[in-house]
Amino acid sequence: MKVVTIGEIMLRLSGEGFLRFVQADKFDATYGGGEANVCVSLANYGHDAYFVTKLPKHEIGQSAVNSLRRFGVKTDYIVRGGDRVGIYFLETGASMRASKVIYDRAGSAVSKADPSEFDFDRIFGDADWFHWTGITPAIGAGGRALISEALKAAKKHKVTVSVDLNYRKKLWSAEDAAKCMAPLMRYVDVCIGNEEDAEKCLGFKAGKTDVASGELELGAYRGMFAEMRDAFGFKYIASSMRESHSASDNTWSGIMYDGKEFYQSRKYQVRIVDRVGGGDAFASGLIHGLSAKPDFKRALDFAVAASALKHTVFGDYNLVSADEVETLLQGDVSGRVRR
Amino acid sequence: MKVVTIGEIMLRLSGEGFLRFVQADKFDATYGGGEANVCVSLANYGHDAYFVTKLPKHEIGQSAVNSLRRFGVKTDYIVRGGDRVGIYFLETGASMRASKVIYDRAGSAVSKADPSEFDFDRIFGDADWFHWTGITPAIGAGGRALISEALKAAKKHKVTVSVDLNYRKKLWSAEDAAKCMAPLMRYVDVCIGNEEDAEKCLGFKAGKTDVASGELELGAYRGMFAEMRDAFGFKYIASSMRESHSASDNTWSGIMYDGKEFYQSRKYQVRIVDRVGGGDAFASGLIHGLSAKPDFKRALDFAVAASALKHTVFGDYNLVSADEVETLLQGDVSGRVRR
Amino acid sequence: MKVVTIGEIMLRLSGEGFLRFVQADKFDATYGGGEANVCVSLANYGHDAYFVTKLPKHEIGQSAVNSLRRFGVKTDYIVRGGDRVGIYFLETGASMRASKVIYDRAGSAVSKADPSEFDFDRIFGDADWFHWTGITPAIGAGGRALISEALKAAKKHKVTVSVDLNYRKKLWSAEDAAKCMAPLMRYVDVCIGNEEDAEKCLGFKAGKTDVASGELELGAYRGMFAEMRDAFGFKYIASSMRESHSASDNTWSGIMYDGKEFYQSRKYQVRIVDRVGGGDAFASGLIHGLSAKPDFKRALDFAVAASALKHTVFGDYNLVSADEVETLLQGDVSGRVRR
Amino acid sequence: MKVVTIGEIMLRLSGEGFLRFVQADKFDATYGGGEANVCVSLANYGHDAYFVTKLPKHEIGQSAVNSLRRFGVKTDYIVRGGDRVGIYFLETGASMRASKVIYDRAGSAVSKADPSEFDFDRIFGDADWFHWTGITPAIGAGGRALISEALKAAKKHKVTVSVDLNYRKKLWSAEDAAKCMAPLMRYVDVCIGNEEDAEKCLGFKAGKTDVASGELELGAYRGMFAEMRDAFGFKYIASSMRESHSASDNTWSGIMYDGKEFYQSRKYQVRIVDRVGGGDAFASGLIHGLSAKPDFKRALDFAVAASALKHTVFGDYNLVSADEVETLLQGDVSGRVRR
Amino acid sequence: MKVVTIGEIMLRLSGEGFLRFVQADKFDATYGGGEANVCVSLANYGHDAYFVTKLPKHEIGQSAVNSLRRFGVKTDYIVRGGDRVGIYFLETGASMRASKVIYDRAGSAVSKADPSEFDFDRIFGDADWFHWTGITPAIGAGGRALISEALKAAKKHKVTVSVDLNYRKKLWSAEDAAKCMAPLMRYVDVCIGNEEDAEKCLGFKAGKTDVASGELELGAYRGMFAEMRDAFGFKYIASSMRESHSASDNTWSGIMYDGKEFYQSRKYQVRIVDRVGGGDAFASGLIHGLSAKPDFKRALDFAVAASALKHTVFGDYNLVSADEVETLLQGDVSGRVRR
Amino acid sequence: MKVVTIGEIMLRLSGEGFLRFVQADKFDATYGGGEANVCVSLANYGHDAYFVTKLPKHEIGQSAVNSLRRFGVKTDYIVRGGDRVGIYFLETGASMRASKVIYDRAGSAVSKADPSEFDFDRIFGDADWFHWTGITPAIGAGGRALISEALKAAKKHKVTVSVDLNYRKKLWSAEDAAKCMAPLMRYVDVCIGNEEDAEKCLGFKAGKTDVASGELELGAYRGMFAEMRDAFGFKYIASSMRESHSASDNTWSGIMYDGKEFYQSRKYQVRIVDRVGGGDAFASGLIHGLSAKPDFKRALDFAVAASALKHTVFGDYNLVSADEVETLLQGDVSGRVRR
Repeated sequence: MKVVTIGEIMLRLSGEGFLRFVQADKFDATYGGGEANVCVSLANYGHDAYFVTKLPKHEIGQSAVNSLRRFGVKTDYIVRGGDRVGIYFLETGASMRASKVIYDRAGSAVSKADPSEFDFDRIFGDADWFHWTGITPAIGAGGRALISEALKAAKKHKVTVSVDLNYRKKLWSAEDAAKCMAPLMRYVDVCIGNEEDAEKCLGFKAGKTDVASGELELGAYRGMFAEMRDAFGFKYIASSMRESHSASDNTWSGIMYDGKEFYQSRKYQVRIVDRVGGGDAFASGLIHGLSAKPDFKRALDFAVAASALKHTVFGDYNLVSADEVETLLQGDVSGRVRR
Repeated sequence: MKVVTIGEIMLRLSGEGFLRFVQADKFDATYGGGEANVCVSLANYGHDAYFVTKLPKHEIGQSAVNSLRRFGVKTDYIVRGGDRVGIYFLETGASMRASKVIYDRAGSAVSKADPSEFDFDRIFGDADWFHWTGITPAIGAGGRALISEALKAAKKHKVTVSVDLNYRKKLWSAEDAAKCMAPLMRYVDVCIGNEEDAEKCLGFKAGKTDVASGELELGAYRGMFAEMRDAFGFKYIASSMRESHSASDNTWSGIMYDGKEFYQSRKYQVRIVDRVGGGDAFASGLIHGLSAKPDFKRALDFAVAASALKHTVFGDYNLVSADEVETLLQGDVSGRVRR
Repeated sequence: MKVVTIGEIMLRLSGEGFLRFVQADKFDATYGGGEANVCVSLANYGHDAYFVTKLPKHEIGQSAVNSLRRFGVKTDYIVRGGDRVGIYFLETGASMRASKVIYDRAGSAVSKADPSEFDFDRIFGDADWFHWTGITPAIGAGGRALISEALKAAKKHKVTVSVDLNYRKKLWSAEDAAKCMAPLMRYVDVCIGNEEDAEKCLGFKAGKTDVASGELELGAYRGMFAEMRDAFGFKYIASSMRESHSASDNTWSGIMYDGKEFYQSRKYQVRIVDRVGGGDAFASGLIHGLSAKPDFKRALDFAVAASALKHTVFGDYNLVSADEVETLLQGDVSGRVRR
Repeated sequence: MKVVTIGEIMLRLSGEGFLRFVQADKFDATYGGGEANVCVSLANYGHDAYFVTKLPKHEIGQSAVNSLRRFGVKTDYIVRGGDRVGIYFLETGASMRASKVIYDRAGSAVSKADPSEFDFDRIFGDADWFHWTGITPAIGAGGRALISEALKAAKKHKVTVSVDLNYRKKLWSAEDAAKCMAPLMRYVDVCIGNEEDAEKCLGFKAGKTDVASGELELGAYRGMFAEMRDAFGFKYIASSMRESHSASDNTWSGIMYDGKEFYQSRKYQVRIVDRVGGGDAFASGLIHGLSAKPDFKRALDFAVAASALKHTVFGDYNLVSADEVETLLQGDVSGRVRR
Repeated sequence: MKVVTIGEIMLRLSGEGFLRFVQADKFDATYGGGEANVCVSLANYGHDAYFVTKLPKHEIGQSAVNSLRRFGVKTDYIVRGGDRVGIYFLETGASMRASKVIYDRAGSAVSKADPSEFDFDRIFGDADWFHWTGITPAIGAGGRALISEALKAAKKHKVTVSVDLNYRKKLWSAEDAAKCMAPLMRYVDVCIGNEEDAEKCLGFKAGKTDVASGELELGAYRGMFAEMRDAFGFKYIASSMRESHSASDNTWSGIMYDGKEFYQSRKYQVRIVDRVGGGDAFASGLIHGLSAKPDFKRALDFAVAASALKHTVFGDYNLVSADEVETLLQGDVSGRVRR
Repeated sequence: MKVVTIGEIMLRLSGEGFLRFVQADKFDATYGGGEANVCVSLANYGHDAYFVTKLPKHEIGQSAVNSLRRFGVKTDYIVRGGDRVGIYFLETGASMRASKVIYDRAGSAVSKADPSEFDFDRIFGDADWFHWTGITPAIGAGGRALISEALKAAKKHKVTVSVDLNYRKKLWSAEDAAKCMAPLMRYVDVCIGNEEDAEKCLGFKAGKTDVASGELELGAYRGMFAEMRDAFGFKYIASSMRESHSASDNTWSGIMYDGKEFYQSRKYQVRIVDRVGGGDAFASGLIHGLSAKPDFKRALDFAVAASALKHTVFGDYNLVSADEVETLLQGDVSGRVRR
């Protein structure tokens, strides 16, 4: 399957271990971003995964490209130019101390890109799937224009489209988000988003749910999903479910709706190594699952197991193979040494 | 608020991660000590925090000064001279393996300091609060003389005085401790100490409590606190409460008594990153709380939340802001990423 | 007590923290192997512990020797020659992601060694105990010949013999293992092995046990141990018991049988730092316990406590002292800082 | 002496050792910038050194403040606000491979600062010296306005003013530089700049000099300095002189003119550890020298020795004491161990 | 230009800095090998560079693939299978202490590969250049067969062929080398080799040259090159020239002969960061130069400048761009900071 | 040969690379001291090398023991007890910036040891050589008593005795040194010391020599050696000769006198990695040379080559083999890669 994702890849600077920002004299330099993370994961699963963005010509831009190539992503469509690579600083939390992200992404090359720099017909001509997230239109006019043109081209070439709504309050208001995102939903076949995303990006509400505690009212979700489907004609709606007991321990699961059935996956207790990119691992698992599994329930099971594993992997990227996910799906959470 | 603390700051040498001493080929070099830790924490909360000690003129002494300055502590009153900076080696435990401390602090500059080297009238003339611990008199004649003169000056200038009893069996016997400490209690407004401290430093006993298991008989504590108050006239008596399930997991809370009411805080489950300095974070939280909160119960709540957070921070210093403590006080222990 | 162990010591290359193999740009280089691990642990307990193997003359071979010397093992009987030091790569798992081992040990110097290179009369002339594992005959003709000659010499010199069956499916088939191992059992006084080892190496079966889940049927074990004892005349049969809840948390205990009584130790909840070498720590604890403790039950208790502690120590070697094990045996799992 | 410097402090991200950007998976995080570097050095020499800038409230901004406090700089006048801390990436060269800098500083808090945010009367009221560089006006309108207002206030309070012209071609054209800088020269007492700076910032030309080779025509310099003095009325004009044999080895010296005499210092052969900040170390050495030495020649000697030493210190800051410079001034370049 | 190289890529394990093997507790893990190094360098210069080899399916094999992809090499033709990745350990020397290499490469997947696993018609069908080295036939029957079949296919498809003779005395005798290599020379257009290679691999002799001292008799070389050309019909013969003053400082140049003219390049003084791969950087520079430069002299100049730069880059790979080589070719060895 | 050395081994804490003390957030922890360094080097050369000292029972003491065992030193005679391990902090210089040592060794276990704790008859009964340095009597009464008793026992058992005078001005005055050292010289067969040592420890003077510059007047040395020999009856007198061009580059050689001939070795240009322990490497090379070489000139040549190599090895210990020294002795300073 040829999969395309479009968005921003950032330089991620994280202190060592659990050091606070003010203690950090070194940063681990990795790269990540919602759409890039999905792309790496799909390359791991064996797909021809293309990441599309714009990156400066200098060596930091090149390092972002190299990071993608290293893990098998095709970078042929990446445009080179512009001034800077977006950056985010990450402080890793523990116990009741939350992880913190400081964004320094304004003015990145892709946020100022022009759609004319990309040959969307070439990109989507032989593509099977296009995935994007609500972050890209939020980063600036460049991102908005890019997604808009990409969606038209994708539809023209009959490419399946998935979106992860991913509302980011630092990037735009709910009002701006809804105004931009709602019209784009008609291009979307598979919609991923939790309650907050649905409310902020699309104006929907799941009823009373306490996001911080992670206690979820499934009934409310089911109703919200049905309404969303009615409004936008999605084929599938799905969401990962995180119950945050602390920065160190979460319960992880997922729900999905196909217009008829509402399905909830099993739950995993995760001891967290790095939870950034967990949602992206869910999205990529779902895309792979829908392409490789006989029904949407098993696709969801794959997505949940894959993204549970992501929480044990350092960095944004979910560096697990389909075989490793399958092993977990077969029920072995024992973590016994494989030799 | 101008706060003064007096004591010893040591070079702390800790191996990487959970390495045992005999495996360590590198040491992380940080600085800490009960009174210095309290001072850094109070500087974080926005107070004018002065740490008073004596340190050698050489670069290891300078590095201790720099470590304090870096985190906002005023070092104007630090006297330079003497031969060595006290050292402690730290091995970080996990699960049922306890952390270990090897002290190499004998002969440090401050343990041999002379009170005449310090201008206590200048130090305390415009001060609001003076905090000290039972460690300083225990490290040697210099420390004892320093505290004695400092207490007199503090009283003269009507400075509020708090003490953390902090009994250290490697430094002195219970007999010596009691002989030295009891007479100093009349200068003290706020006394912090757990059952063992009260017994060893002041001769009190809380009844049957199993320190190792951390199961506490609150009734016994209440009685002991009342007796202590009667004997020494403290305005407040407080103690942190640690239930040690293992080197990795503790339950953390605190108790406090104002002569009328005995108050117990909520309990936090802490997954430990670094528990050294937890008690000092409690003391500094209490000092800040008593100065900023409307009643002693909320002061205790602040102290307990602040020191629970300390357990997630590497090093002796509690590098958390008052805002971060407030967020935890509002009940969110979910550890969800802040972005 | 003079103890001898014979086998292969490998260079262990493990990535930093929880990094996956494909992320590792650095490897921590330590050394380990079943018999070497037992030897280091016995040296820690104060025994004259000799490790016998063959290692190349080059610096990687020398580094393996140095690693043993550093922790007190006598290396006088190590023969130098051959081409390579066996290697194993280790990826450390977390939560539901299992640790992984990639072996690169074929053709190691000891796997091709000739018994004539070793003076077994000198080695065993004044020895008290000989320990070996089922790995050494599995690595090649050299290993098999070595163990065979060593066992003869040990018996000749009336040395107590213990074995850890340690079946490794990557090294040989159950059929080959049984054919080789069964005849060697007549030299053995103390046999250590879990159900899988007994089945694969000796052809025994403990009934229905789910190794992955770690739920054990003790009744079945007791029957199997009795049969094994009848068949081979072991004085003691023992096994560690691991219940793997995840790669991060295990429950650890042990069982032992002396022909009359079947004894089960207490259970420890272990938060894992490094579980490789846990079984070897059990074996060395048992050897020390049987030599130093008044009865086999207390020997087992020592072995279980010692190997529980191992799970908190980085590397293959169990770098804990007998004193530390005793402290844990007295019941203090609180992990409170020792200062 | 109370010294004030105003400018931008950046987060410096440098790879380990000589790694190229595309190899760097970790960055050392330090802080630096022309005016901040001068300030740290002057604090080392014992002056009351104040650095004035604007930095975001978040933890990266705080870390920049902490870095200054750590080394004794007064940060009381730093305004907190704005969005980002400027960044520069540094790749350290060796032999014929040059070091590389990638700037990512557009939009930093200080580049958008408003002079009204600073109380220049308070800042300069009791100040003795004000140092600035040509970089600050180049970074944006905020920087230009800041310098302009600061110079007025400095003159009003009779503060000695020094400038390091520091032309940066990535920040502005020679035309823009000259238009902005020339009018500001009337506030300047001490002007530091090499031939390229003088040409690009002020329109002067030293005749034929090959900057790359570092072969200098002193006669041409003397003439240029005389003309500059005539044009702008500087009391002193000085320049460091670098002969770049390779990225690893340079020859370092300085020249200075007081309107009557043209003086050239001795030359030092430097084996380079980190040459960034070498020019700033020259400037701070000169400021200290002019305040502490009996004549301008010895001031220059101090500046050259101090900045030669800087080349052996990692990071932008010149962490050497006045005593260490004096030792070198006395002629001992032997580098024998001091114990 | 589509370029193909075939050979072995090894895991390189080097200690930190100048640590000796017996001090190394960590190894930097990079990947390299003569042909892979050439391929990475050509990818850097913008060519479609394909590396052909066989690597195990496990994660160490995958990491070797990822290392190539990261730097732009096409890995489509790499066959996956076999047991192990060859390893070499590297100790970095300094001053009069030489660097040391310990090879642990016996039995690598590619050394046992079968030509039938590769589709040479597909590989060479549209290729422009094929480069190989004398190492590949030396590692085993698999390597020999691979090269033999590859050369036939390359000739069939009219691909230009270059070889770096690269005699390795640890891998085979001069006798075996000559027997194998001489017949393969008829496929070769461009032959790279120094005096020792020519003698050991082809039986030629340059007269008296002291390899250790690096003093070279150019006249003897010219004669040898002419004889070699007569014997094998090479279009070009070239050699890099290393004068080893110490492990830290070398003089580097090159010579080349086209049947008519014998040309010697300029000499570079190199302060060494990592000299492994210097010869491979020369080969790749020559291949690029011959394809991009107007005459063979400028090709040699490019090759020498490129490989001089390699000595300043950590790892086997020459991570420099063609632009960077051009800058050096223009004569700037000053190493001034590029900003 | 059984060799015994007695003295103090310290924990050495050195910052990473060229970091200054005030920049160091990590310390590399190694162990060293004059006599221990000599012992490790002799173990490397294949001798039975015993280091005698007193070290605390805690883990830092144990780590010192382990460091010696790791490199083959026999630690059987080390007494365990006392409070602390001496420490020294090391800052590594570069170019004209000198390395710095801060000693924190007062009160170490061995400085307070009592000779009665050691069984000198057992230690020296079968010994061939005893080496000590002037540092041990300087560290305290314990050290003085130890050396005094050891010398008597060594003489009693006809053990050859060598001394390295090693004057340390931080430890004692020239007056105290001379009073203590001169009487001990009658036990000494081989005396090592430079001009400063001879002057300060024994009251001799070589005439005008500028130690800092390293320009040496050999004639003066010859006269001084002859006088020293006349006064104390040494069999051999030797000294290493360091010409310090900078902290990065030295010229290294040695001189020796046997009562008849005065011999000067060849000179080595050394690019310094770590010069601490260079003198100890000279002493151990001389001891080995005198035991293994046919004449004292070749012994000196060995000593100089061995200690030149030391300058390229990190840490106090000279981790080079006799074979490596021989290779250098044969004149190859080219540093070409050994593979």
